Amino acid sequence: LLAFVASTASADGAMRAAAEDVRERALADPLAWELLESLTTDVGPRPVGSAGMERAKEWAVARFQVLGFENISIESFEKKDAWLRGPESAQLTAPYSRELAVLGLGNSVPTIQEGVEAEIALIGSLAELRAMPEGSLAGRIAVLNWRFDSAQGEAGYRAASDGRRDGASIAAAKGAIGFMLRSAGTSSGRRAHTGVMRYAESAPRIPAAAIANPDADLLERLVARGIAVRLRLRLASRLLPSTTAWNVSGVFRGREDPDAVILVGGHLDSWDNSEGAADDAAGVAITMAAARLAAQARVRPRRTIRVVLWGSEETSGSSEAYAERHRDEIAHIVIAGESDLGAGRVYKIATSKCAWSDPHLQTLTAVLAPLGIQQDPVAADFGGVDIEHLRKAGVPVVRLSQDPREYFDVHHTADDTLNRINRRALDQNVAAWAALLYVFAESGVDICSHDD
Amino acid sequence: LLAFVASTASADGAMRAAAEDVRERALADPLAWELLESLTTDVGPRPVGSAGMERAKEWAVARFQVLGFENISIESFEKKDAWLRGPESAQLTAPYSRELAVLGLGNSVPTIQEGVEAEIALIGSLAELRAMPEGSLAGRIAVLNWRFDSAQGEAGYRAASDGRRDGASIAAAKGAIGFMLRSAGTSSGRRAHTGVMRYAESAPRIPAAAIANPDADLLERLVARGIAVRLRLRLASRLLPSTTAWNVSGVFRGREDPDAVILVGGHLDSWDNSEGAADDAAGVAITMAAARLAAQARVRPRRTIRVVLWGSEETSGSSEAYAERHRDEIAHIVIAGESDLGAGRVYKIATSKCAWSDPHLQTLTAVLAPLGIQQDPVAADFGGVDIEHLRKAGVPVVRLSQDPREYFDVHHTADDTLNRINRRALDQNVAAWAALLYVFAESGVDICSHDD
Repeated sequence: LLAFVASTASADGAMRAAAEDVRERALADPLAWELLESLTTDVGPRPVGSAGMERAKEWAVARFQVLGFENISIESFEKKDAWLRGPESAQLTAPYSRELAVLGLGNSVPTIQEGVEAEIALIGSLAELRAMPEGSLAGRIAVLNWRFDSAQGEAGYRAASDGRRDGASIAAAKGAIGFMLRSAGTSSGRRAHTGVMRYAESAPRIPAAAIANPDADLLERLVARGIAVRLRLRLASRLLPSTTAWNVSGVFRGREDPDAVILVGGHLDSWDNSEGAADDAAGVAITMAAARLAAQARVRPRRTIRVVLWGSEETSGSSEAYAERHRDEIAHIVIAGESDLGAGRVYKIATSKCAWSDPHLQTLTAVLAPLGIQQDPVAADFGGVDIEHLRKAGVPVVRLSQDPREYFDVHHTADDTLNRINRRALDQNVAAWAALLYVFAESGVDICSHDD
Repeated sequence: LLAFVASTASADGAMRAAAEDVRERALADPLAWELLESLTTDVGPRPVGSAGMERAKEWAVARFQVLGFENISIESFEKKDAWLRGPESAQLTAPYSRELAVLGLGNSVPTIQEGVEAEIALIGSLAELRAMPEGSLAGRIAVLNWRFDSAQGEAGYRAASDGRRDGASIAAAKGAIGFMLRSAGTSSGRRAHTGVMRYAESAPRIPAAAIANPDADLLERLVARGIAVRLRLRLASRLLPSTTAWNVSGVFRGREDPDAVILVGGHLDSWDNSEGAADDAAGVAITMAAARLAAQARVRPRRTIRVVLWGSEETSGSSEAYAERHRDEIAHIVIAGESDLGAGRVYKIATSKCAWSDPHLQTLTAVLAPLGIQQDPVAADFGGVDIEHLRKAGVPVVRLSQDPREYFDVHHTADDTLNRINRRALDQNVAAWAALLYVFAESGVDICSHDD
């Protein structure tokens, strides 16, 4: 027995040493930055249905090849009603004329050519909007003025994006002829934050746009004067009834148990209005680099590491398509993770609650601690939009929570550019994911599936 | 003699106490913020030749009246070739297509409807551009890629704006068919910084625009790959051959020597793409509030305080018009100052070198010290664009240097909005100007005219 304990302890010691080595090499590895620089520079914006997304697919395959990934695969799926932005503008028309900074929300119907022009009704919150009487917004452009504060982090974003998703139909049901949203984001510049919305079946489909925070401030100040405030909103867009999107993946096969898969990735698609550096070229770069570093440990890990670059996160589609296609493989996917909050530093790791009793995970916690990462006692109830359908099918998830304070300044804006990425923080993310992938792939850790 | 010294000392003590009282009241006075909020909200963008500038003129007169200013005067002057922006866009066309964030430079000719499309030539500095051989830019869009760093402060801005002003004609003389400039500003967002340019007589007039810093970064990264980088620039604008602009002024008459004038102000006009909060609603608000606070000292000061709200700073005109109209009054203008760097904290006071031997100015220095303001031993060789023609005519100037580090993030961009103004710093400016105006108006200080 003592001999067995000693040999286990020594195996654990070797795994820990190897994981620490992976972590340290990651901190000095230029690969993630190079990938990030290339995806933002050589590909640029890459919404589903655009030439950019085709370039992104080709970029991913070429990079996987150069980096020695195996089983490189392009899994195409049909994307219905891909939404592509056209020219957009908004003007204050009373009490005087001036341009306003707006962005149409994804899935919004276009306006007629001359736009929709009306007096606005400023509404403080989604709850307030829901509580308004029937007909109370008749003929108005409803402006949902809820403020998202970066101190609220991701929870604040979720609350704000609820308004973005559902606001138009709720306002339309009360008579509104247009819907605008104070951006679900924290840019202090005249940059609206876009994002998807959806229409309920029961209400007229009215045009929906986000307005930049300083311009929402202006509307607020004007309304406070007790005068009629009017604006004109012009939105154009087209829907591709059916287009193709792709999840692109590559693996480093495990040396002993290649069918057991540790799955990680970021999403290749982006909004149209920037090079999508934080959202999500960073996640693509972090997970590709981390997988390679983990696979290049002194000994190739026991289980397979698979990187999936998701093809339709922003307007959804990739998660469903992947889970559907890999239905028969679910039991072999040991764990799944996604990197999709830019390059904000990782400060917390969460996974299934019961997993923490496994000594391998205690080893991982020890390896991550010098990076400033704590173990989250709360179970990960979400790992990322693209792995949500895997999670629902029973795949355990792991989540590295990131500092969100700067991310939401650029998220879904035209300002999501390479110069806003902190390279040291990017490297810290790579180190965390690389060590994590190594420990999950090398150890026999078995994660109970999501337990609460 | 002793009695005289004692009475002088006591008079000085009273003046200092009164100046300190003005300073302290200023720090608690909401007026400047209210004026700033109103000009940005009720008037909005106000370029010369626009309806906004008409509103600004009316706003100024109404506010002067409400605040008890006397001799309110609207001095109109002719502004020739007022430049008004039309629709503008730019696209990268090779190696792939993507939108670029640009702004035409003031005075630029428009492009033809379909724009000018060409390979770019990236040039590191104005000196390098000047040194290029004849014909070396034939058929190219020249992109001047000089970086302005906020650590360089106002001197850096002047260097960058030299390129903005002169770059197009220098490039045109070497064959360029278009000119672009890395923005003479420090926004990290996809916001180009506009500003005026001018054409030399000797070269073809080519279209000229500023490009946002992250987009200049992109061009730089693409050019570093050794590939042909092409773009299309579309600019529209119109010139009003002759329009009217106005310098609007009001005074608080001196109780003893009303013909002696302490002149101060900010400029009412702004660029078209924002509400011009920092440039220069702040200066308007600061100087109006400061003048009123100084005039409302326990005893109205001896000399007249005049606030001039300048009507055409951005594309010039107000300075010449005012100096010309007030030619016969030059000798009576004791000193002139301008507030035109937003609400960045004041850290330094400069005026004519010889003035510092006057004990009244030592008193002023002592009153300003608690605000964190030092005396600059170097003579003020510049007081502001709008008082430059007064200075050239012999009027001494005083300058309060301001922290420029945030100003150039928004300067001449669409992001120059109220939410970027720090109210505490605004109040510190008001306190500094109010104490300064009071001491200059109350004391007999006589500033030797510019001495070096």
